Amino acid sequence: METIDTLIKARWIIPVEPDDTVLEHHALAIRAGRIVALLPSAEADDRYRADKVHELPHHALIPGLVNTHTHAAMSLMRGLADDLPLMEWLKGHIWPAEGRWVGAEFVEDGTLLAMAEMLRGGVTCFNDMYFFPEITAHAAARAGMRAALGLIVIDFPTAWAANADEYIAKGLALYDDHKDEALLSFCFAPHAPYTVSDEPLKRIRTLANELDLPVHMHVHETAHEVEESMARFGMRPLERLAQLGLVGPNLLAVHMTQLEDAEIAHLAEAGAHVLHCPESNLKLASGFCPVQKLLDAGVNVCLGTDGAASNNDLDLMGEMRTAALLAKGVAGDAAALPAAAALRMATLNGARALGLGEETGSLVPGKAADVVAVDLGALESRPVYHPVSHLVYATGRQQVTHVWVAGKALLKDRRLTTLDLEAIQARAMAWQERLKANA
Amino acid sequence: METIDTLIKARWIIPVEPDDTVLEHHALAIRAGRIVALLPSAEADDRYRADKVHELPHHALIPGLVNTHTHAAMSLMRGLADDLPLMEWLKGHIWPAEGRWVGAEFVEDGTLLAMAEMLRGGVTCFNDMYFFPEITAHAAARAGMRAALGLIVIDFPTAWAANADEYIAKGLALYDDHKDEALLSFCFAPHAPYTVSDEPLKRIRTLANELDLPVHMHVHETAHEVEESMARFGMRPLERLAQLGLVGPNLLAVHMTQLEDAEIAHLAEAGAHVLHCPESNLKLASGFCPVQKLLDAGVNVCLGTDGAASNNDLDLMGEMRTAALLAKGVAGDAAALPAAAALRMATLNGARALGLGEETGSLVPGKAADVVAVDLGALESRPVYHPVSHLVYATGRQQVTHVWVAGKALLKDRRLTTLDLEAIQARAMAWQERLKANA
Repeated sequence: METIDTLIKARWIIPVEPDDTVLEHHALAIRAGRIVALLPSAEADDRYRADKVHELPHHALIPGLVNTHTHAAMSLMRGLADDLPLMEWLKGHIWPAEGRWVGAEFVEDGTLLAMAEMLRGGVTCFNDMYFFPEITAHAAARAGMRAALGLIVIDFPTAWAANADEYIAKGLALYDDHKDEALLSFCFAPHAPYTVSDEPLKRIRTLANELDLPVHMHVHETAHEVEESMARFGMRPLERLAQLGLVGPNLLAVHMTQLEDAEIAHLAEAGAHVLHCPESNLKLASGFCPVQKLLDAGVNVCLGTDGAASNNDLDLMGEMRTAALLAKGVAGDAAALPAAAALRMATLNGARALGLGEETGSLVPGKAADVVAVDLGALESRPVYHPVSHLVYATGRQQVTHVWVAGKALLKDRRLTTLDLEAIQARAMAWQERLKANA
Repeated sequence: METIDTLIKARWIIPVEPDDTVLEHHALAIRAGRIVALLPSAEADDRYRADKVHELPHHALIPGLVNTHTHAAMSLMRGLADDLPLMEWLKGHIWPAEGRWVGAEFVEDGTLLAMAEMLRGGVTCFNDMYFFPEITAHAAARAGMRAALGLIVIDFPTAWAANADEYIAKGLALYDDHKDEALLSFCFAPHAPYTVSDEPLKRIRTLANELDLPVHMHVHETAHEVEESMARFGMRPLERLAQLGLVGPNLLAVHMTQLEDAEIAHLAEAGAHVLHCPESNLKLASGFCPVQKLLDAGVNVCLGTDGAASNNDLDLMGEMRTAALLAKGVAGDAAALPAAAALRMATLNGARALGLGEETGSLVPGKAADVVAVDLGALESRPVYHPVSHLVYATGRQQVTHVWVAGKALLKDRRLTTLDLEAIQARAMAWQERLKANA
């Protein structure tokens, strides 16, 4: 008998790797935070003595979801302003509220709210872009959640930094302080082609190459962005980024609703990643990302929720569903983005984009035990013919019952173990009163 | 003090009529199944002595949701086959399974499963189109749910009827048997222009006019349907229906993804209704219904889930969200289909289409007490700036806590009062084994 920390026996295990695999009545064994084996439940009792055993008879185990595009702290602005054209929404509501309120306390409270929501919805890793990332780093460490922190850069001064040089310097200092922490990783996060000028982008290219860090950036979010770039630079944003040397395997291009076929081929050839945020793109009427064309070209496409101010939730299971449905409508093909591909986008593809493909994103021995249990025994999921289809098309995030990150249970029977739900709610309500008073 | 049956005190009441109204700290009074008043909670205790008082301090009360397009019994085929082109899905999977299994027992068990799911998601009324509608009528009566029963007509023989004459005769007999039941109403339900020929459509027109019943029909679901009609009849399906005298205030046209501007004007002028099923349209890649254009033209647009075999749930709250998001993407305008309009589509517009606009669809004194309580105190809904926005963009159906139909509580603290959840699940699982064995 081998001694392990945790044994999880489930009705189904969907490891994502290898493709199209559904293991029935299997168990997952965890030791020292890592997956040591997947094996038939009937054999597991003979082989392992576990400190903790979980019996999940109606559940599917899946890899922890990877939310590749968030502005976590903006959860405090959830529903502050909706149903408005993008520029009216930004200039009339979001930017004034940010200017007035964003600081260390706002980022801490907002990020804790966001992490509590994400963990309750099966997200184990998020890729964030926001101010005060050192606060986000501390909050993630407190939660025990895996986080990729964006070293944000923008031409404008904010409460966090005065100019591009200061953004970059503070980002590098943060990276230096935390680069050895197991659950944290880092991306450069220049906000967008229209808000970051050439000089800081060149510095970021050099630094990203030296440190081998991803570059997380909004690109081709709207037709307006592309038109403005044509007027200002005489070229489309992606072309400008290419000339600056930024279009390569380190580029994580968010949104990409405006894409010509040659650009899709370019992204594929360069090995760049696309972070697809279907609900935000719909809500802000930004356009339709051609997901199936990108997949056909071999581009790694991942999923993100964007911030809760433009979604208005951080529900990556819902995002899988929207992505799978919308891709069919956009492609005019009901076979586009099938369920298993949507689940891979929400897990393994995201991990790979973040440079974490060897660490998380699938249930494979040797990887960190980032694992989510989803109860398919709810009435709303009956009957069950194909569990992968159900996870995408007929399951709500409230059916997530357990979440482990690096083998540690952060959600047990829907109770958060590291975060104080009541305190987080109370802080959110206090912010609500402040933001309302200044609306 | 007046004596009433039920007093519900809520943090918010969103009556839908009048438009853009949010009542704070109000109560809703119910007597003999009907709404008698909406008034400040503080005044309610002085004015009413109620048999039952519900205190719902974090909840929004909304009208019961009206799901205007279902094939309820198909919930037993939830996820049976997905990610397939429409004709392969129908011919290779759905039609063979229906041919083998559909009968009274299938319809009863499937409809009970569907109603349990719908009630748990805040749906109080559904407009069904399926075989054996007399079984659906009995099941709805057992649940205490409001139902509009489709008197289905199709050119092909099924287990229920052999030909159009028999479909119509059986439908009329059902109508005659049940037309005085308070919670039941009826529509003629010719399946689609491509499956029902001119002669039965003419008879339906005459009967619908005589009995003043709506005509519930799939129309312009796909481009293929329109092309086929051009080849066979030399005109688009809507034009053919117009020539047959069916395009008027009784027409409930489902899907309508293929619409020219002149057709939109025609629908508006005729007073016809559009039953929009955005998730089904996406999943089957049928096309995009131009919702905002229809609303701008003055067409009454309602919401439906379609059957669980092509959705794969009966979640009308999710459908509101998808409708509101998708309408913005399709219109290229973030201000299209705002939250309040989406809620109206899911409630009052649906009631009006079904001829029930004086009975349900809004929280107005005199109407039946079809009421839903949604808990906005969940972490996922914090903070709350605008409760209507949250209902559409940041609330899951699992936050529905209470449902009343005609004043009777059918869901209390998420427990069904008239339906046996365990028995329904057991039956669904038995069908799962049968259908799997024959897949």
